[in-house]
Amino acid sequence: MDLKSIIRNVPDFPKPGILFYDITTLLQDPDGLRTAVDRMIEPFASGDVDVIVGIESRGFIFGSAIADRLHAGFVPVRKPGKLPAKTTSASYALEYGKDALELHEDACRHGRNVLIVDDLLATGGTAKAAAELVERVGGTVQGITFLIELEELKGRDRLDGYKLHSVLKY
Amino acid sequence: MDLKSIIRNVPDFPKPGILFYDITTLLQDPDGLRTAVDRMIEPFASGDVDVIVGIESRGFIFGSAIADRLHAGFVPVRKPGKLPAKTTSASYALEYGKDALELHEDACRHGRNVLIVDDLLATGGTAKAAAELVERVGGTVQGITFLIELEELKGRDRLDGYKLHSVLKY
Repeated sequence: MDLKSIIRNVPDFPKPGILFYDITTLLQDPDGLRTAVDRMIEPFASGDVDVIVGIESRGFIFGSAIADRLHAGFVPVRKPGKLPAKTTSASYALEYGKDALELHEDACRHGRNVLIVDDLLATGGTAKAAAELVERVGGTVQGITFLIELEELKGRDRLDGYKLHSVLKY
Repeated sequence: MDLKSIIRNVPDFPKPGILFYDITTLLQDPDGLRTAVDRMIEPFASGDVDVIVGIESRGFIFGSAIADRLHAGFVPVRKPGKLPAKTTSASYALEYGKDALELHEDACRHGRNVLIVDDLLATGGTAKAAAELVERVGGTVQGITFLIELEELKGRDRLDGYKLHSVLKY
């Protein structure tokens, strides 16, 4: 199945000059969703992943389906102030300024082997912050899997040392 | 499996006087996640659901796992400004003021029979807005499923006429 053919390209979103790869057209196609999940887990399906960490909010979409498939737990990494219990926080750079992500401190109670999931690898800032958080709470990052990788932004370089997987390269 | 026993009660979140039912402790337990999904789809598993609509953002977590289980498509209902293509919008009341949700106008391209998914039924405002949106773009709401229902807020009354299912009642 050609997944790129069911991703919609939206020019000038969220701002002029940006070409946005809209995955909602893939997600709403039952075979598209199923195939995307199949391919995102391929290198990890035979491993011992205990916990899937999904990055808010499109990472939740693939992350929970992957957790259910692999019979793993699902753990959300969220924007500040959304998680109700004790959290740890990591900041990352944006084009202008910075933002932060939070993880519950007890997020690895059900196992230490973690697969981090997001829809898109761009500069790698959010994935790197998520990996930092996972390690800080005692998890071991088995890998990081993405549906889409924007190769020219070189996010892969920033995540050196982690087992990275992406299904579609642009 | 007693799902209530793996939900964490957090007092005074997000503000004083509110008892927050934190589902992250359930989600991170592989059997908790699997059982929650099993029970949320029970009344709908033998039906003809084409599309799962998940409400941002905890509805994404259950919604995509349910879509993958039922071999349905997944469609996100999001906060304003997040969806990149042509949307339709519905507002709903908050305690003070109001907020809105958006849905892509082509969200039912892969079928008309829709199951709406969210983690929590409180006053029913967001679910009602989601159902309105689905119907506006040509979908038929087969049902609405929640993990948790806060019975004293009477959200069920507001969703009269829809087939409602909730796994845990408080």
